[in-house]
Amino acid sequence: MIKNDILLRAARGETTERTPVWMMRQAGRILPEYRVVRAKAKNFVEFVKNSELAAEVTIQPVNILGVDAAIIFSDILVIPEAMGLPYEMVEARGPLFRTTVATMADVQKLNIATENELSYVTDAIRLVKKELDGSVPLIGFAGAPWTILAYMVEGSGSKTFSKAKGFLYTQPLVAHALLEKITTSTILYLKAQIAAGADIVQLFDSWAGILSGPMYFEFALPYIDKICEAITEVPITVFAKDAHYLPAQLQHIKCDVVGLDWTMHPQRVRDLLPHKTLQGNLDPCVLYGDEKTIIHHTHQMLQAFGSKRYIANLGHGLYPDIDKEKAKLFVDIVKEYKHNA
Amino acid sequence: MIKNDILLRAARGETTERTPVWMMRQAGRILPEYRVVRAKAKNFVEFVKNSELAAEVTIQPVNILGVDAAIIFSDILVIPEAMGLPYEMVEARGPLFRTTVATMADVQKLNIATENELSYVTDAIRLVKKELDGSVPLIGFAGAPWTILAYMVEGSGSKTFSKAKGFLYTQPLVAHALLEKITTSTILYLKAQIAAGADIVQLFDSWAGILSGPMYFEFALPYIDKICEAITEVPITVFAKDAHYLPAQLQHIKCDVVGLDWTMHPQRVRDLLPHKTLQGNLDPCVLYGDEKTIIHHTHQMLQAFGSKRYIANLGHGLYPDIDKEKAKLFVDIVKEYKHNA
Repeated sequence: MIKNDILLRAARGETTERTPVWMMRQAGRILPEYRVVRAKAKNFVEFVKNSELAAEVTIQPVNILGVDAAIIFSDILVIPEAMGLPYEMVEARGPLFRTTVATMADVQKLNIATENELSYVTDAIRLVKKELDGSVPLIGFAGAPWTILAYMVEGSGSKTFSKAKGFLYTQPLVAHALLEKITTSTILYLKAQIAAGADIVQLFDSWAGILSGPMYFEFALPYIDKICEAITEVPITVFAKDAHYLPAQLQHIKCDVVGLDWTMHPQRVRDLLPHKTLQGNLDPCVLYGDEKTIIHHTHQMLQAFGSKRYIANLGHGLYPDIDKEKAKLFVDIVKEYKHNA
Repeated sequence: MIKNDILLRAARGETTERTPVWMMRQAGRILPEYRVVRAKAKNFVEFVKNSELAAEVTIQPVNILGVDAAIIFSDILVIPEAMGLPYEMVEARGPLFRTTVATMADVQKLNIATENELSYVTDAIRLVKKELDGSVPLIGFAGAPWTILAYMVEGSGSKTFSKAKGFLYTQPLVAHALLEKITTSTILYLKAQIAAGADIVQLFDSWAGILSGPMYFEFALPYIDKICEAITEVPITVFAKDAHYLPAQLQHIKCDVVGLDWTMHPQRVRDLLPHKTLQGNLDPCVLYGDEKTIIHHTHQMLQAFGSKRYIANLGHGLYPDIDKEKAKLFVDIVKEYKHNA
């Protein structure tokens, strides 16, 4: 039994007494308390693999910011690593894979990731659940298959991901084989997170927006569909950043919640998806503004989404230089807001 | 008199015997001939300022690739430089401004750019026009004010431009003062390009897509509107990359051509903008594919846009590692395509 289950009720489409709220990257560098724990690990990958430290930073924003859910601290790139493609996190540059995928032989060499390789995540989930003691739900997550492929082929972050996108045009069959393998791994991974205690899970398709609609419908959405069909135990959220052509298609996908970035128009998406719960979508840069600015934009957003089937969040993760007090202000504004009857 | 004026006729909405075609960044690193000329300048900024070299690379793709227009080789950041904010181009990192804009005092110190500071561009245009000798039209261009502000405030390229976006929320009045000054400079600059011989001009709003609709309508579109109202001499094109919420609003703007990135759906935009010429929008990554793939996607695009009010192009600039022969193939496919009656 979860004491504050308002987020889960909103995800399931039930009426809630107020709007639930959490923030992407709430367990992160905006919190001085996070930076203290982070300093105990010798690098980012070791940090992610340390279940005790990961559990500790997962819980921090619940106490410090008052959010309605914790999200397990981890990284979407644990899946490629568990499949046999290790990565490093290079300061100021981002992730780097020294080995990448280019051929069918490369795909065949990859493993299906199992809980064995990812037990540090499920261990962290169990620690968090124990510590939370039913206060708020815990969100599990994974990268969506296209975004994971993008890193495995490109080998690093990129403005254009032109190598990964080129791969879809030049080697579509290899791409599909890789996407299948990522999808199978992701389903096992999410089910392991749920078995360990995750109350809801989210797919992050961070690089959705660099694909055209037809390419997304061929190389990304079918795999999201498969994952959503497989995850029947808890609600599932799909967040495909910048895929503005997507909402009209999501009505056919068995997801409960749709995450939106700040370029998406609340009412337009609501009209397209009356039976989904929507999540988002404040521009994180609003939190650089003063109190008046933050209240204005947050109220505008709350009004636009309405009181039903809605979870307040940002349209992207918190940026590291956002003031913790501003993030807390955002949470407080949402929690205190009264919708007009 | 221009011999091949098919692009200008399409821009003006006249019927054309085939679809005109050019490519963003056609004068660039994909051409070995460009790299030879580029090597003659000691750095990128010096290269842009050398009218003879700029003129030479402007003409190359007309002869080598057979495109229906030349576009003057330059950079959108010549405007900040002419306003008093010099930049460097750092290898593998992109543009860097050592001085940035943060306060109203900073804005007041900036100049309105005039042809004096930018005569190297108008000189290059005159050289190109002489050399082209009326064979094809010459496209002039400038950055759209929001994109120029983004660089002047951020100081460099960025994945999020969070500093520049934060500036809009924290200092809206300073932002508007800066945008006014950029707009005035841009109008003078485009008029100087037209006086020197540019037959059509294009505004590049490269970072349009990181603003929400409401922010774009407040900080970007009004300045584009002003520029389009001021440029009455030749047709003008607006290309706002990733601003998927924009087309519905562009019907009210006095532009002749609307550039589209590859995430935009041709028929949807055509329905929204029946009285504009559309330009775009092949995913440049298609050109990594084999001949069959390039033909397939190019034909699909040509069919989707139809035979009227359309200029074929990519949805973004050519990437430097795209094969010159593939770019030429794209041009040939467009020129040979016959629309079904």
